[in-house]
Amino acid sequence: MSAEAIREKNVIEATLTTLVMANRILARETIIDNFGHVSVRHPLNPDRYFLSRSRSPEIVTRDDIMEFTLEGEQIGDDPRKPYAERHIHGAIYKDRPDVHAVTHHHARSVLPFTMCDASLRPMFHMASVIGAEIPVWDSQDEFGDTNMLVDSMAMGHSLSRALGANRVALLRGHGAICAATDLKSVVMISIGLRDNAELIQATRLLGAVTYLTDGEIDKASAMLLSPMPVARAWDYWTARAGFGGI
Amino acid sequence: MSAEAIREKNVIEATLTTLVMANRILARETIIDNFGHVSVRHPLNPDRYFLSRSRSPEIVTRDDIMEFTLEGEQIGDDPRKPYAERHIHGAIYKDRPDVHAVTHHHARSVLPFTMCDASLRPMFHMASVIGAEIPVWDSQDEFGDTNMLVDSMAMGHSLSRALGANRVALLRGHGAICAATDLKSVVMISIGLRDNAELIQATRLLGAVTYLTDGEIDKASAMLLSPMPVARAWDYWTARAGFGGI
Amino acid sequence: MSAEAIREKNVIEATLTTLVMANRILARETIIDNFGHVSVRHPLNPDRYFLSRSRSPEIVTRDDIMEFTLEGEQIGDDPRKPYAERHIHGAIYKDRPDVHAVTHHHARSVLPFTMCDASLRPMFHMASVIGAEIPVWDSQDEFGDTNMLVDSMAMGHSLSRALGANRVALLRGHGAICAATDLKSVVMISIGLRDNAELIQATRLLGAVTYLTDGEIDKASAMLLSPMPVARAWDYWTARAGFGGI
Amino acid sequence: MSAEAIREKNVIEATLTTLVMANRILARETIIDNFGHVSVRHPLNPDRYFLSRSRSPEIVTRDDIMEFTLEGEQIGDDPRKPYAERHIHGAIYKDRPDVHAVTHHHARSVLPFTMCDASLRPMFHMASVIGAEIPVWDSQDEFGDTNMLVDSMAMGHSLSRALGANRVALLRGHGAICAATDLKSVVMISIGLRDNAELIQATRLLGAVTYLTDGEIDKASAMLLSPMPVARAWDYWTARAGFGGI
Repeated sequence: MSAEAIREKNVIEATLTTLVMANRILARETIIDNFGHVSVRHPLNPDRYFLSRSRSPEIVTRDDIMEFTLEGEQIGDDPRKPYAERHIHGAIYKDRPDVHAVTHHHARSVLPFTMCDASLRPMFHMASVIGAEIPVWDSQDEFGDTNMLVDSMAMGHSLSRALGANRVALLRGHGAICAATDLKSVVMISIGLRDNAELIQATRLLGAVTYLTDGEIDKASAMLLSPMPVARAWDYWTARAGFGGI
Repeated sequence: MSAEAIREKNVIEATLTTLVMANRILARETIIDNFGHVSVRHPLNPDRYFLSRSRSPEIVTRDDIMEFTLEGEQIGDDPRKPYAERHIHGAIYKDRPDVHAVTHHHARSVLPFTMCDASLRPMFHMASVIGAEIPVWDSQDEFGDTNMLVDSMAMGHSLSRALGANRVALLRGHGAICAATDLKSVVMISIGLRDNAELIQATRLLGAVTYLTDGEIDKASAMLLSPMPVARAWDYWTARAGFGGI
Repeated sequence: MSAEAIREKNVIEATLTTLVMANRILARETIIDNFGHVSVRHPLNPDRYFLSRSRSPEIVTRDDIMEFTLEGEQIGDDPRKPYAERHIHGAIYKDRPDVHAVTHHHARSVLPFTMCDASLRPMFHMASVIGAEIPVWDSQDEFGDTNMLVDSMAMGHSLSRALGANRVALLRGHGAICAATDLKSVVMISIGLRDNAELIQATRLLGAVTYLTDGEIDKASAMLLSPMPVARAWDYWTARAGFGGI
Repeated sequence: MSAEAIREKNVIEATLTTLVMANRILARETIIDNFGHVSVRHPLNPDRYFLSRSRSPEIVTRDDIMEFTLEGEQIGDDPRKPYAERHIHGAIYKDRPDVHAVTHHHARSVLPFTMCDASLRPMFHMASVIGAEIPVWDSQDEFGDTNMLVDSMAMGHSLSRALGANRVALLRGHGAICAATDLKSVVMISIGLRDNAELIQATRLLGAVTYLTDGEIDKASAMLLSPMPVARAWDYWTARAGFGGI
């Protein structure tokens, strides 16, 4: 193997190690349960992405990771089943060159906000990472009665258009998607979304709510999504997920 | 032992292994606690069903499983006590040939819906498996003041009539029953019921609710109760319940 | 040692083993935390009771148990500190010959009911064990501003009068007491109280509440506090508290 | 090493051991998560304080502890990064000679009270330790749109002025600070704050609230912050945090 080939292999393996850890962290933090998934764009080929075979994230290992084209075609001849909803990931990677990691989940605290018109605008600094605008996509609008899965490129693109340039979108009666520049950031956004949902729920029961200003959201999210805070939070989540020595 | 006898024994033992796992999973997921139970119809004799002796599901083992006629008569001379409420299971198996697995539980998030008139209609796709209609049975209507247990075939049949052709029924001030074609599906329905109850509670505090349409409930539940999603969820629940190698 | 002395010692040790288990179970089930306690009347001398030295129940062992007169005088010359609030126990044992076990705790779901006028009447069959009437005692009424502890026999008797013939009483801004014929029953009552409080909270947010009837409370509590259900629940709680082999 | 030097070293090491335990306890009790911190004033030099390097408290060890001047200058040439918000601690130690331990955290149940005008006045005796008055500081008032961090001495002093002579202050859309005479007391105050927030939330949903009187707050907090209750609670928290043998 050439030195270049070794280097490339190492970059890919490091990415996949992080992807497996992201699966386990999101399971530990109850963002994803039996369903839901997290992907990463290929670090050397922007026209590909990595995603587990159809398996609950809590038990995903390196061996479960598959490679896909942005159209959702599986690379290689692995006979195992991919996620039916992988098209969410491909569509976003196509439309958003800045995005290198995507989660799709049904975090329980977020779901109520997909079924009513309450706002999920950030209320505290750690949730600023979700961004000021959180659009809601309803599969009924374009597709009518379905089994609720985003299981075609057409649905993936429809959802991606709803996401636009934002970091988070909600799916009515279904869940949420989060998009970021890297895996560690998309985990921070997914957890910030969960926490903001819990806090809005609690605060609305107490009285009139004070949200962060647009300026605070911009400045706090820029700070939190910078390397130091992301690394510190990642250390915490990996320890909680049982990756003691990493 | 003849080849046929061996085959039959293996089918029964596989069913009982799954029944023990269902007990442990439902305990781990806080559907059942010290009380509550899960049964399975005999895989080779539709006039019989299997159920643990009177014991908390969290600690049920293969050795605790007893066999009953649909009238609740215990097969064999095991001196241990059966559940007083086993008649729930027999009555449903009598009335519903399509049902091969039943749970009875007091999941805490479901109980409020047995004591007031709020609707439990599915609000998100993973809860579609509970079905669009969830009748409520009140022991007062036919039996007046009781100790609240469904401890006779007369009460079991009354409850079964209330269930009708549905997958879930509630018992006023008591709990719920879930019925399905197999053990893995009845676990999915029991957990979906718990989650839907939690989400309706949370969403109603935020604002006006959007439920799934009848078409979405039909299509999403057909998809979720198909082999792939059931197997994927079962893998997740067994891992969480500590059945690592299965 | 005479045969009689051995028999008496064994009875006492069995009682203390159960008392230690009750401490651990109540800690595991989040009824008691750093504060709160559980006592048992001496099985052979009704004028004495057993209670841990001042220690968090989660870490109480056999060696921590002390013996007291009903007036709260410690038997023997153990230099360790007793609970300041032991007088709760002595006063109830004096006034209620039928009571052989008492808990005092600050279960979080119960506390709101001590600070407002919402009713804790049983809403589901497993909570019937707390009884239909739950009086509230306010230390202000007789004692004005205090440090809120029931740390004298005068306060203990005041609280015991408020309890009357009931199984549960609340202490305004402080917590609850539960009284029963034995340790396993007082654990069931303490846990039923916690669950009923959680459920009333949840149900009131959904709509108008249907409580159990007086007849249902009487019949369901008589059934649940009989030997079989108590033993089954105790097996469950001991397993959860880590007493695997018992 | 002189006898005096050995004695001083031992005093410092004992303080740092307690500081590490406070980090772990606050993580275990979900007061602090990936962010948030706890400090202690130098036991022999009131112009210095100890605080972990920038690291999640759940994984802080003795080796992570750094020493700072009250102006936030790091002692020694450790190249590792300190917390950007260490100025909270220095400013309070400057303004409050009675304070020897400080926490800054984002306990989830407390956050809603930073974003609306509901009161956090103590409702039950164990929460009396937070004190009757809990001021709210808003970074907007003096500093306008920021990244929400208290990352300068100017901001630290502004916050410290808001705290005044109290034990707790809230930061709008951000979190809380707690100040006490020692580490064990500041842990008790931080946990009491979390519990009081949860209980006010729950009680307000049930009906009109009865708070503790000023006299009760004074007497109960004096009792709880005395050596016996603090030691008993600390034993409980250390056991839960896994410090079995301490």
